[in-house]
Amino acid sequence: MTTTIGRVRATGRGRRWLENGHPWLYANDVESEDAEPGSLVRVEAPDERVLGHGLFSAGSKIRVRLVSRGAGEPDGTFWAERAARAVAHRRRHGFLDPRAACRLIAGDADGFPGWVLDRYADALVVQSGTLAGDRLRDEWLALVERELGFPITTVIDRSESSLRRFENLGPRTEVVRGAPTNALEIVEDELRYTVDLVGGHKTGHYLDQRDNRKLAARHARDARVLDVFSYDGLFGIRAALAGARSVLCLDQSEAALERARENAARNGVADRVATERVDALRDLRERAKGDARFELVVVDPPAFARNKTELEGAERGYRELNLRALRLLEPAGVLVSASCSYAVLPALFVEWLARAASDAGREVWLEALAGASLDHPHLVTLPESAYLKCAFLRVGGNA
Amino acid sequence: MTTTIGRVRATGRGRRWLENGHPWLYANDVESEDAEPGSLVRVEAPDERVLGHGLFSAGSKIRVRLVSRGAGEPDGTFWAERAARAVAHRRRHGFLDPRAACRLIAGDADGFPGWVLDRYADALVVQSGTLAGDRLRDEWLALVERELGFPITTVIDRSESSLRRFENLGPRTEVVRGAPTNALEIVEDELRYTVDLVGGHKTGHYLDQRDNRKLAARHARDARVLDVFSYDGLFGIRAALAGARSVLCLDQSEAALERARENAARNGVADRVATERVDALRDLRERAKGDARFELVVVDPPAFARNKTELEGAERGYRELNLRALRLLEPAGVLVSASCSYAVLPALFVEWLARAASDAGREVWLEALAGASLDHPHLVTLPESAYLKCAFLRVGGNA
Repeated sequence: MTTTIGRVRATGRGRRWLENGHPWLYANDVESEDAEPGSLVRVEAPDERVLGHGLFSAGSKIRVRLVSRGAGEPDGTFWAERAARAVAHRRRHGFLDPRAACRLIAGDADGFPGWVLDRYADALVVQSGTLAGDRLRDEWLALVERELGFPITTVIDRSESSLRRFENLGPRTEVVRGAPTNALEIVEDELRYTVDLVGGHKTGHYLDQRDNRKLAARHARDARVLDVFSYDGLFGIRAALAGARSVLCLDQSEAALERARENAARNGVADRVATERVDALRDLRERAKGDARFELVVVDPPAFARNKTELEGAERGYRELNLRALRLLEPAGVLVSASCSYAVLPALFVEWLARAASDAGREVWLEALAGASLDHPHLVTLPESAYLKCAFLRVGGNA
Repeated sequence: MTTTIGRVRATGRGRRWLENGHPWLYANDVESEDAEPGSLVRVEAPDERVLGHGLFSAGSKIRVRLVSRGAGEPDGTFWAERAARAVAHRRRHGFLDPRAACRLIAGDADGFPGWVLDRYADALVVQSGTLAGDRLRDEWLALVERELGFPITTVIDRSESSLRRFENLGPRTEVVRGAPTNALEIVEDELRYTVDLVGGHKTGHYLDQRDNRKLAARHARDARVLDVFSYDGLFGIRAALAGARSVLCLDQSEAALERARENAARNGVADRVATERVDALRDLRERAKGDARFELVVVDPPAFARNKTELEGAERGYRELNLRALRLLEPAGVLVSASCSYAVLPALFVEWLARAASDAGREVWLEALAGASLDHPHLVTLPESAYLKCAFLRVGGNA
């Protein structure tokens, strides 16, 4: 840590907010500030009591992201302990098989504000959303790598988050080490798939649905499966590996579907996995007019609401999409329906699913409402760290 | 079904409420009614359109509980299909081992309004909350029993719900068949325990935590375990079977603790399971002052809020209880914390847990928020059918 340190004074409201447990101090709750952009700062209450220390994001609405509480300044071992804790958590939950993939650092929920580190076998992909994260990148990378216990050959920085603009940062894409590939093979239990480290969505793949894909596959035996917004096809391919009779992957991206077909072939299930390039919402409406029905439908759309102002449109989108999916299910079939919009809180999502059930005229039971896999931890005092909802719904008799 | 049938006309608001999917018509949303207490009624919109059919509870705030929607009157096979569906659901999810226990009918969520049927090995226990349920008891029992595929020797009616007073019904306790025992053995995987069919809580046992006990036991290996509000000790005994170093069960009922000790002996883990009769909240406060710490703490209290008016007191209770439990955990330990109050919605419960974490000065991650076992289904259009929340929390480093 630095020896000279800036300071930010919170308002009374800001103090209460932080004392209630949330780690972010918003610009509206700052009384005064005197700090270098991207530096560690001391956060004080109006009466000068030290509330904690955090990383300062000049210009951002989230002005300080706390990394510690109380008066003590983070010392030289601080980040090393954070890195050790984060890696130990992944090890405890079985995420560290050398050929597998996982999120090693999930930003603020792991105590690394705005900073995400994903691992794909022996490659690491960084996403920094702040100036502090950019500056500390190499230090943090070294600390995490030391904990892993296996060699990393490739490191890529894909800091392309839209958050960065709040600190006047452009995208940063950089090969830090090694030579990135567009088809790195990942092995996850009996499943194999490839990741495009350079051109794939997010850091190459949607790691957060790993456990939900396994849960969905429990309903796949002998089922006809529809995988809507399939991306690289892993919900469907997991289902095929679990004994699905047939799988149809729908996506609007031909590149994604090509990867889904490659992944299907890699797992020896190409004969049971078909793909169609479609606009999903329109396709489901047309499909419901036909006779084809499914025992398992997975709907994992992109975020319909990036913030509260988009909720109205999101409600229409989710209700419509789930209504159409419900219409395609056989009696006693299962709908796996996800939402990755933080702004759509779990209770609201369930309410919309209930409306879709009612619109469809079907009885529907919610058998589970899961979140992201445990390598995307939910810090209970940071609701924003729980963005993914994955509902497992069973439909009633009358199709 | 009867041939002469009563009718209830909903207000415009009542019609919208039902059309949005909820199956209960409240007295405030009734425009007019002409029906026999406890009978099947036709529910009409203000324009006389038939919205569905339901069971009529004269005098209750929940005036009609819908059993079907649309104009068609439930026919002679209606209840048989309901019973078949409910039993098929339990069979699908592995609840029908003849020596095990489960909820066979979970009231409105299974389409049997206000009527609960639990199975303990070859015994059935009924809880009816309405006059209609009382009247239809024998018909419904016969239909369920026909689906089970194994013999039932004992049937008890323990209709003691406080709901009954709204229809001027007193408690009804009756041995319908056989001879009830106070120590019926249940076998659930490797676990054995006994149930007091006559004097136990609810219908004898808390069936809804079955799966959560298994999930909690995953964190039990080599752990020191504290089981608070232990009742018959099954969280703790599951933990002992999964390799816990020691288990301490706390409860205020000596009878419950005696059963916990019997259950421990029955499973061969009596040497690792101790019991203490205490007032839990006071005990945890005192215990935190001492040195004893645990790797796993389970807190499964009785409902702190039976309705919205009791939420303020419930907040104090849950925050205080969970704060004290968190203080007793070793670094990286797990708190399993339940709330069975419907009025405490999941988001609110998580918020209170976050406050408890903040009060305790500990970092806490929510690893899962589970509900009841799947034999207590959550009908998505009936939020009241999701009353149980069971949080799995991991605490951070500094104890």
